Amino acid sequence: MPKPIHYADASAEVRAVFDDIKATRGVPDVNNFWKYLAHDPVTLRRTWESVKQVMTPGALDARTKEMVYLAVSVTNGCEYCIASHGAAARKAGRSEAMFGELMAVVGMANETNRLANGYRVPVDAAFEW
Amino acid sequence: MPKPIHYADASAEVRAVFDDIKATRGVPDVNNFWKYLAHDPVTLRRTWESVKQVMTPGALDARTKEMVYLAVSVTNGCEYCIASHGAAARKAGRSEAMFGELMAVVGMANETNRLANGYRVPVDAAFEW
Amino acid sequence: MPKPIHYADASAEVRAVFDDIKATRGVPDVNNFWKYLAHDPVTLRRTWESVKQVMTPGALDARTKEMVYLAVSVTNGCEYCIASHGAAARKAGRSEAMFGELMAVVGMANETNRLANGYRVPVDAAFEW
Amino acid sequence: MPKPIHYADASAEVRAVFDDIKATRGVPDVNNFWKYLAHDPVTLRRTWESVKQVMTPGALDARTKEMVYLAVSVTNGCEYCIASHGAAARKAGRSEAMFGELMAVVGMANETNRLANGYRVPVDAAFEW
Amino acid sequence: MPKPIHYADASAEVRAVFDDIKATRGVPDVNNFWKYLAHDPVTLRRTWESVKQVMTPGALDARTKEMVYLAVSVTNGCEYCIASHGAAARKAGRSEAMFGELMAVVGMANETNRLANGYRVPVDAAFEW
Amino acid sequence: MPKPIHYADASAEVRAVFDDIKATRGVPDVNNFWKYLAHDPVTLRRTWESVKQVMTPGALDARTKEMVYLAVSVTNGCEYCIASHGAAARKAGRSEAMFGELMAVVGMANETNRLANGYRVPVDAAFEW
Repeated sequence: MPKPIHYADASAEVRAVFDDIKATRGVPDVNNFWKYLAHDPVTLRRTWESVKQVMTPGALDARTKEMVYLAVSVTNGCEYCIASHGAAARKAGRSEAMFGELMAVVGMANETNRLANGYRVPVDAAFEW
Repeated sequence: MPKPIHYADASAEVRAVFDDIKATRGVPDVNNFWKYLAHDPVTLRRTWESVKQVMTPGALDARTKEMVYLAVSVTNGCEYCIASHGAAARKAGRSEAMFGELMAVVGMANETNRLANGYRVPVDAAFEW
Repeated sequence: MPKPIHYADASAEVRAVFDDIKATRGVPDVNNFWKYLAHDPVTLRRTWESVKQVMTPGALDARTKEMVYLAVSVTNGCEYCIASHGAAARKAGRSEAMFGELMAVVGMANETNRLANGYRVPVDAAFEW
Repeated sequence: MPKPIHYADASAEVRAVFDDIKATRGVPDVNNFWKYLAHDPVTLRRTWESVKQVMTPGALDARTKEMVYLAVSVTNGCEYCIASHGAAARKAGRSEAMFGELMAVVGMANETNRLANGYRVPVDAAFEW
Repeated sequence: MPKPIHYADASAEVRAVFDDIKATRGVPDVNNFWKYLAHDPVTLRRTWESVKQVMTPGALDARTKEMVYLAVSVTNGCEYCIASHGAAARKAGRSEAMFGELMAVVGMANETNRLANGYRVPVDAAFEW
Repeated sequence: MPKPIHYADASAEVRAVFDDIKATRGVPDVNNFWKYLAHDPVTLRRTWESVKQVMTPGALDARTKEMVYLAVSVTNGCEYCIASHGAAARKAGRSEAMFGELMAVVGMANETNRLANGYRVPVDAAFEW
């Protein structure tokens, strides 16, 4: 089983990514996800650069992006990601009421996805534009 | 294979739900999803009442809710729901730029969910509050 | 893309499996699933022997087994399997009312699975026996 | 991370739902799922009313419904739901033999769903009725 | 909750399968998966015979097969299978570099699967041969 | 519904990515996936750069990587990806026998993932190293 690679034990290549994560997020240390990915510095760098690009506020604000990330993680049942993006969404300003509504939408979508599958509902012509 | 039940052929019980959908959404007819669910009037009513409650703007606005619905449907690969909630999100005001960013977040979350699984990353103590 | 292998073109090894499927099910021809699996005679035989063993009535009757098969296929969104096991469940005697209740349970389970994930609900001690 | 809301600390709105769950199921306390959902009283009530409606014996008996619920939860890998509906199915009378056969069907369906996907098997005309 | 069935407490039928697993793999004891499946001797035997057939080196070598097994398990988020087939892939000779590239491919495939879903990309004619 | 963006209608930014895909792969045109992603040039570029990095032969050869990609796509039921990576794996030299064995492993892994879930099998101490 892989073990986390801490800053003190990391190569210069890995430290450079860790430094950028810490500076970008204003945190004293990176979280476990990055310490495990550090076993593969190429994937570490690509994943961090991708996450940084994707999660930067643009047409969608940071809070909405974190809630979408959480919605996907809950659908997939990824416990680590539910915990980490749950914390991130909270930090990005989602209230308890928002969390409750988010879970309600996620649950409902997972339900109706299966009702649509089970009844083999054909796509309405009106949805094709 | 179930066939759709159209308004003209529907029972009073089903028509009552169809009428409420049409009035609530301001549309001339319900979409296929409801016409298939009409085979089971109890589930039809419960599902509609639930969707209506869940999708009403509250702490989250309608557009955000539609985008979360779409994010779940894309993750699950439900074609009908991708088409219907894609259309609904568009109607609720998501721009093409928002759609692009939404897909980027959904894709990234699906990727990192598996990286976290594969490396068996333990949840950071800091995420437990 | 693989093409179906029809009885007339099949090897003796494949025909032997096709003959057993037809005799066991009392059907004049096998369905597409087996005609495609015929590209790999070893997997064809193992899958058929396994399905035959698993789907034989035992502690659970044939209809219940077909409904469970359908529930899994709907959850996974496998269109072929929804169609084939939907037809099989119908042949095994599931009524339209049973189908409606089955879909309702499948939908609800998919919803509450995500609510449990999202709230990170710990398993109750009472469930461990 | 959300914490459970116990009866003693719950609002009147939440207590009313807890009371109905306890009375309907004849149990002295609700399980963790409801104590976490209590953070969102509207979703708590809707989910309980929906589960109560869906799981009431009808065309399908209680035991069959619990086994289908378990089949979906196992497919999705939802540990909480596997534990809770595993316990519920057991309480509803599923024998150890039934459990074994249920798992065998769930496993087989998950396998053949992917064989059908991988070989891109087209739906037989005979399955469309 | 099922408990493991150890060799000393197992029936002759179960012991015969355990003996074959131990002899085939050259291990002093079977792992937990088989001790739990032992509750259902018919499924235990069928599953073992199937795994043995499927995982035997053929057109694909053992290491490749173990990596594919791991890729599926990571996609599904099955913790037990990630741990057991992670160990098996390692034993079959996958290096740390191979593990890193494997995870990178699994992550990327999960991402692009959703991009293809979300944009509803039609299959190119060139992919149909 | 998004429409494909063809080279003739593409911006300079999109054309630059299309040109690199065509040169890298030695193909006269890009496939549909890229023509749809072209609606979001930033995601187009990032996804292409990532795929190019991840799929380049390294510790794992190109054929193994394509087979893993296909295994994930089959597990997720992404039809586009099954078709495109099925074609790519074939081009990369996978024989029909390899395809058959690959599908057999994917099917078996999906089955045993659920057996492990359903029996709630705890990870063996021996798998933690």
